[in-house]
Amino acid sequence: MEEKERADRGLAFLLRYENVAWYEPGQVRILDRRVYPMETRFVVCNRHEEVAQAIADMVTQSFGPYQAAGMGLALAAEECRGMGEEEQRAYLKAAAYTLTHARPTTVKAMEAAVAGPLEAALTALERGKDTAQAAFDQAVCEVDSLYRRYIRVGELLASKFPKGGTVMTQCYAEIYVGMMLRACREAGNDVKVICPETRPYYQGARLTASCVKDMGFDVTVITDNMPGYVMKKKGVDVFTSAADVITMDGYIVNKIGTFQIALCAHHWGIPYLVTGRPDRGHPTIDTVTIEERDPNLAVESLGQRLVMEGVKGYYPAFDITPPHLCSGVVTDQGILSPFDLCSYDWNK
Amino acid sequence: MEEKERADRGLAFLLRYENVAWYEPGQVRILDRRVYPMETRFVVCNRHEEVAQAIADMVTQSFGPYQAAGMGLALAAEECRGMGEEEQRAYLKAAAYTLTHARPTTVKAMEAAVAGPLEAALTALERGKDTAQAAFDQAVCEVDSLYRRYIRVGELLASKFPKGGTVMTQCYAEIYVGMMLRACREAGNDVKVICPETRPYYQGARLTASCVKDMGFDVTVITDNMPGYVMKKKGVDVFTSAADVITMDGYIVNKIGTFQIALCAHHWGIPYLVTGRPDRGHPTIDTVTIEERDPNLAVESLGQRLVMEGVKGYYPAFDITPPHLCSGVVTDQGILSPFDLCSYDWNK
Repeated sequence: MEEKERADRGLAFLLRYENVAWYEPGQVRILDRRVYPMETRFVVCNRHEEVAQAIADMVTQSFGPYQAAGMGLALAAEECRGMGEEEQRAYLKAAAYTLTHARPTTVKAMEAAVAGPLEAALTALERGKDTAQAAFDQAVCEVDSLYRRYIRVGELLASKFPKGGTVMTQCYAEIYVGMMLRACREAGNDVKVICPETRPYYQGARLTASCVKDMGFDVTVITDNMPGYVMKKKGVDVFTSAADVITMDGYIVNKIGTFQIALCAHHWGIPYLVTGRPDRGHPTIDTVTIEERDPNLAVESLGQRLVMEGVKGYYPAFDITPPHLCSGVVTDQGILSPFDLCSYDWNK
Repeated sequence: MEEKERADRGLAFLLRYENVAWYEPGQVRILDRRVYPMETRFVVCNRHEEVAQAIADMVTQSFGPYQAAGMGLALAAEECRGMGEEEQRAYLKAAAYTLTHARPTTVKAMEAAVAGPLEAALTALERGKDTAQAAFDQAVCEVDSLYRRYIRVGELLASKFPKGGTVMTQCYAEIYVGMMLRACREAGNDVKVICPETRPYYQGARLTASCVKDMGFDVTVITDNMPGYVMKKKGVDVFTSAADVITMDGYIVNKIGTFQIALCAHHWGIPYLVTGRPDRGHPTIDTVTIEERDPNLAVESLGQRLVMEGVKGYYPAFDITPPHLCSGVVTDQGILSPFDLCSYDWNK
C-alpha cells in the first residue's frame, strides 16, 4: 500500500524508493539500471560488501548509489547483530568505509549520505534498540527529504511550460524529471516529452523515456544527431537538463551532448532551463576537469563493437555549456540568471 | 593485379570496384554494407531479379546500387544468351526495368545509370558480339569515369587542410572521402579524421572509419552527441560532408545531424565545406521534402529495442543546414560560395 501511495503521488517505477535500492532483513535489492527496461532485474546483495560491489559495477547511478549505501549500512547492522557492543561499533564503521569507498570519485558525497544512517545505528546500539531498523528508517527519511526538496524545483520548471507544450530533455535527470512531471500532472498540463537517446549508454532512451511513459505522458525518443532539427520541426517549447556541476560563473557541466542541444536551442530561440544549484566548490569553469571514460565505449553499442580493428574511440563524459546559452538555473530558491548565481543563499 | 593497382591508387576496400558490386559469369557479388565491418559478407545473386532484390533490401547504399544495377544487366544478358535476337532484346529491356525500379524513390537516377550498359548490350547483340561482356565493360567504364570526375573535388577539398590537420566528417560520403584521402596521401599530408558514428545505422563508425583506416590514416569515432565538444577539444580544422541535395539558394540537405555539427563548427569558427554540386531541380529549399523513415529504427540499435513499450520513435532521415553555416561548396569546377551557386556551369 505504501508503494501504491507513492505511485499515486506521481512517481514512476524508476523513482519509487523500493525500486531504487531497498533493505529487507537478510538482503538489499538494487534495480539494475544497466539493462532496464529491456529487463527488469534486481541485483540481490546478501552482504554489505556485495552492495559496495554493485555500486562499483554501476548497477545504479545518479542518486541510486547514495540510497544503496544507506541500505547497505542497515544490512551491515544486521550482519553484526550477535557481536559485543564494541565489536558492532567497529563493524559498522568499517562497513561505512567500504560502502563510501565503492567509487573513488564520489567518496566525499557518499560519506555525507551514509553519515545519517551510521549515526542512527550507533545511537540505537547505545540505547539497546534495533540497529538495522534504525539505519533503514534514517536512510528512508533522508531520501524522503531529498525528494521533498526537489518538489519546488519541479513546480518552478513546470510553470514555464505552455499548456500542452513540448519539452526536450537530455540524459536522465532522475528526481528532477519525476518532480517536473508530477508538477505538470498536478497542474493538468499534458506536456509531450522528447528524449534524445544519450549514447553510449542510452540513458535518455532507457531511463528518462521509461520514467515519462510510466508517469502517463506522451514521449518520443530520437537519436543524438536529431535534436537540432527536431526541436524546430516538433515545436519544442523548452529544453531542460540537470547538471553535474554549475560553476559560480554560470557554466553548465553536464552529460556530453548538452552543449550541442543548448546551442541549437539558442539558434531557434528556445529557452534552456537547467535544474540544480550552483557549486561553491567551483568559483569558475577553470577548476573543472572533464572526465574521460573508456574509449571503447564510444565504438560499441550494448557490448557489440561497431568498428574495424585499429579504429580508435574517444569518450569525454561531459561537456561545457557557456552561460550565454543558458536561460536560467532552476533552484529551490527560484530561477536564477546564470550571470547572478551568487544570489543563491546557501544558509537557507 | 587490377585490384592491387587500384589499392595502390589509394582506394580502400569499400571503394574498390570489385568490392562494391561485381559481375562474374553466373553471378553478381555485392558487399553487404549493412553488417560491414563486423562481418565481411558478400550477397551472391544468381539472377538479375536477385540483384534487384538486394538493392531493395539496402544491401548496398550511396553509389553502390547504381553499380550493382549495371552489373545486374550483364547477368541478365548472360541469362538470355540462348534466346533469339528479338527475345533477347525484350529480355534485356525487361531486366533493365526490374533493376531500375528496385527502389521507388531512385527510378530516374537508376535509369540513367543502367542506360549505358543496356545500350552497350543491345549494340553488341546487333553486331553478334558478347552482350554480357559489353554490358559489364560499359558498367566498369561508367564507374571509372565517375571516380575520375571526383578526383578534382578531393584535391580541392584536401588543399584546404593544414599539414597534419584534423578533419571531421559526417555519415559516409563514399567516393568523396576516398578521393579526399587519396589527395591527402599524394600531398604527403597525414591528416587525422574524426567520424561521428551516425545513428541509427552507424555509417560513420562502420563505413567511413573503415575506409579511413583502410587507407592508412589515423581515425577516431565518437558518438553523435560529441562533435560540438570534441571539435574544440581536439582542434578540428575542417568539418566536411557530402549532401543529398544542395539547393540553388544554398541550403544543404544531408544526413540528419549535419546541421548540428555545422552549427557547432560555426560557433567555434571552423569552416564547413560541402562536396557535391548544386541541384537545378531545387531552385529553393521550399521544394525539398525531408524523408521520414520507420520510427522504430530510432529506438533500436542493431535490431535490439532500447525502450519500454509505448515509447515512440521519430526518424527524419535528413536535416537542413542554412547557407550562412556553410563555408563553401566544393565542386569539380572549384569551391563556390553557397550564395553564388548559379555560377556553376552545367554545360561543362
